[in-house]
Parts: sequence; structure tokens; C-alpha cells
Amino acid sequence: MPASDSTAVKLLTLARDLQRRKARERQYRFVAEGLRTVEMLLASPLEVAGLLVTASLREDDRGRALLAMAEAREVPLVEVSEAELASAADTETPQGVLAVAAIPERRLAPPSGPARYLVLDALQDPGNVGTVIRTAAAMGVTATVALPGTVDVWNAKVVRGSMGALFHHPVVMMSWEDFGRFVETAGVELWAADLAGVPLPSVSSADCPERLGMVVSNEGAGLSPHVAAAVTRTVHIPMAPEVESLNVAVATGILLYALRVASSSSQSS
Amino acid sequence: MPASDSTAVKLLTLARDLQRRKARERQYRFVAEGLRTVEMLLASPLEVAGLLVTASLREDDRGRALLAMAEAREVPLVEVSEAELASAADTETPQGVLAVAAIPERRLAPPSGPARYLVLDALQDPGNVGTVIRTAAAMGVTATVALPGTVDVWNAKVVRGSMGALFHHPVVMMSWEDFGRFVETAGVELWAADLAGVPLPSVSSADCPERLGMVVSNEGAGLSPHVAAAVTRTVHIPMAPEVESLNVAVATGILLYALRVASSSSQSS
Repeated sequence: MPASDSTAVKLLTLARDLQRRKARERQYRFVAEGLRTVEMLLASPLEVAGLLVTASLREDDRGRALLAMAEAREVPLVEVSEAELASAADTETPQGVLAVAAIPERRLAPPSGPARYLVLDALQDPGNVGTVIRTAAAMGVTATVALPGTVDVWNAKVVRGSMGALFHHPVVMMSWEDFGRFVETAGVELWAADLAGVPLPSVSSADCPERLGMVVSNEGAGLSPHVAAAVTRTVHIPMAPEVESLNVAVATGILLYALRVASSSSQSS
Repeated sequence: MPASDSTAVKLLTLARDLQRRKARERQYRFVAEGLRTVEMLLASPLEVAGLLVTASLREDDRGRALLAMAEAREVPLVEVSEAELASAADTETPQGVLAVAAIPERRLAPPSGPARYLVLDALQDPGNVGTVIRTAAAMGVTATVALPGTVDVWNAKVVRGSMGALFHHPVVMMSWEDFGRFVETAGVELWAADLAGVPLPSVSSADCPERLGMVVSNEGAGLSPHVAAAVTRTVHIPMAPEVESLNVAVATGILLYALRVASSSSQSS
């Protein structure tokens, strides 16, 4: 539905403000940019406060289909100039559309059966964090935990990089104290990747605990002290000697894939 | 060694020119940017034509160590202003250093034993291609083949994303006709990832041919027709139903890891 003039001004101002983490934390809102991301947002159960669109969006079928989805959900639509859209966008190419939506409230539920968590220990690069979240969702992880030092997962670059995974996969930002308590209460074993660890291919299904949290950290920086003290096992991905490390999203993909294969073979045996 | 004034002007002009693919193809030279990348370049056997550096590089130990490495290799050093460096750089943060180096001549050698190739079928995103090459090197792939439609692998963003892997891992850009002939002559079996393929965890060591080329393509775009016609088997990475696809670098990591594990278990049995 077309928004009134005052709503239009407010939505543009709000979207610009939400570029800052503090504003997102105060407003419980975030910005999603680009066609694919906004399509997935509109298909998700998340509450969408409004869309900023440019006239160019009506020029092709995909843009018109997106507008129809928004109309069907009764999401307020505000038409702005390319320059206004760019002023609220974090990426260079918002593709004529930007949405403001509510950050869903998410907590870690005590697991009733087997559970897999991915734990981000001070992961800073937003593109990597987005890809990591997309990977965790694809590999069927129960939830992803973002510990302090990790980029705000509602940053527009993370939202875009997650390719919609953030809209359904639970990602919880929490302090080490709170997560440490959860790990203890829920009986979660924490593992991490480390060059000195057990080679990943020799981890058998019998080694995999029912409730496992896999910690990944910044390349080079290593684990933060609290986390390192709580980790009970380290594993490593065998690599050619000329290569020092893998990209963190690639390493996460391999770790989660290998653990998924090991766990499913334990269920079938 | 400090360069003469005319060398200085020439190197800066050359570096700017090398931002274009055509210039790289004509000059057989490329640009490497940033501390880590230039460190790895200087540690590699590649011929380095010269370094552009800013005064700020001398301000810390790491910068001074890099300059010492360059002096030891008798690489011409040209001091430029921050603005001049930025004018020749592709990335936003060249960190005070940029190198011009020779593109190594690389061909596919006929394999004498087992071999693994990674085949990039029209992969366009330079960041992804850099990460994919780094991953291929880490997973011990024999060589990576970049088919037409793939971004020039000597693009500065690919060079940076490969984290030095391009300096030792052979990456060969070739036409489908040339690669198709190589595949036939060398007895390489081509596999690709596809949702309709065999689930990856059920691929056994007995299934893996001695010489295997794993094809990865642009998400969404699928294989190009020539390649599709030559592929003899497709495999897929099992994923949660809510997720459509993985990032191509993550998918490549999982595919190469799983094939490596399958092959090594066949060698040990």
C-alpha cells in the first residue's frame, strides 16, 4: 500500500539511522537490501515495517512481482529517488529496493534431543559471517551463537551475505557468561578447529557427542581465553603444506559437513 | 634498491594500466596489493618487476621487514604518495604497498599418476574465485582450470582473495576446446555438482576415478553446454530443505574435502 507523506519521510530517516549498530539495537529493526534478499524477507514470517523502492523497480517482471508480494502482505511502500535509496543503503547496488524489518527475538531453547551449535568467536568480517550463517543453515545446525567481538549479524552486509538464512535460521548474540551457562546446563560439548587437533577424517561417529558446539574464530587471532578454556577437543582439516589456512566460511563448511556425515552414520548404525 | 626517476614514473603508469585485463594479457604482468599478499609474492619464485610503496610503510616493523625482503631480492622500490598508490590500486586499502610481477607461464602437464583438477566453469565473482583457488591449493588439487566466462585470475581482487595460493598453485586459463582435448588424452573423468546428483557422502573410494576433474559453476547459472555434455557423473551436497544453495567457495571446499578423504581411504585399503 502507498504510504502517506509523513510515513515516507520517517521510513527513509529510519533506514538511514539503521546503518548504525546502536540504532538497530535501540529500534529492534534492520535493513535488508537488494532484490533476492527482499524477496526472501517477504517470503519469511518476519514483520516488515516498509519498503523503499525506486521507479526503476517497476520496469521488469521480477520487480513487479516483488511489489505484488509486498502489496499482498500490506507492507507500506515508499517511492524514493535513486540518490535517496543510495543514502540509506550499505551496499553499492541495492537494486532499487530496501526493506526495514523487525529483528526477531531469539533465544537458545534447552535441547530435548541431539543438537548442533555453531559458535562464532569474534568473527569480524561481515561477508564471511553472512556466508557462515548461510552454511550453518544449509548444514542443518540447530542454532548459531555469535559471541562478543563478532560483527552485528543484523548489519546489512551480513544480512545480504546470508542469502536469507538469517530469516529462518536462529542466530543468537550472547555474552560468554550466558553461553557458558547454557553449555553447562544443556550438556553441550565444545569443539574447535586447531592445527594441533585430531585430523577431521579420523573423527568417527562414536566420537561425536549428542550435543556439540563447533567454535570457529578469526583466522590468525585464535580463540578468546574463556572459550579456549571450555573447549574439550580440537580437530583440524588436513591441508597441503604450502597453505597456511582456509577461508573461515570454507573451513566452517567442511567442519559442519564432516560432523553431519559422522552423526548421520552413527544414527544409522 | 631505489629506482631512478624514469623507472618510477614507468612503474606507476604500468601498475595503473594493469588494472585492465587487456593490459595484463599484453604485458604478461599483474598487480599484487597489500602487506600479506606482497609478502607471499616476495617469498615465491615469481619474478617481481618492482614495488610501489608509501612513506608510511617504513613506520612499523612489518613494513620494514617487507622492504628488507625486497632489497634482498634486488626488487626496484618506488616511493609514491598515498594518492598515487590509490590511483593504481584496485582495493580500498593497499596498506602502503603494491607490487608489479610477471604472470607465470603455466600449462597442464599430462599426468603420470593420479590427478585431481578443479574446473571453474564461468565463475565470475573475483572474491569467490580467489577463495576457490586458495581452497584448491589447500586440498592438494593438481591444477585449477579456468574456462571461458571465468574472471581473469590475475585480477587484483582474485590475487588478493587467493592469499598467495596463485603464486604456487597452478591455475591455467584455457578454452573448452583445449581442455576437452586434454581431458580425452589424459583420461580425466569430469564430475559436477548438481541437485539431481548422487549424495556426496555415499560416494565411495571405489567410485573415485584415478584422474578426476571436479567442475564448479556459477550459482544459479548452471553448467555451460560443452561442459555439461562431457560430465559423466553429478554429485550433490545434502542440505536442509530451507536452503537453496551454498556459496560456491564453501561448496568447492566440501566437494574437494570429501573427494580427498574418499581417495586417501582407497589408497590405504
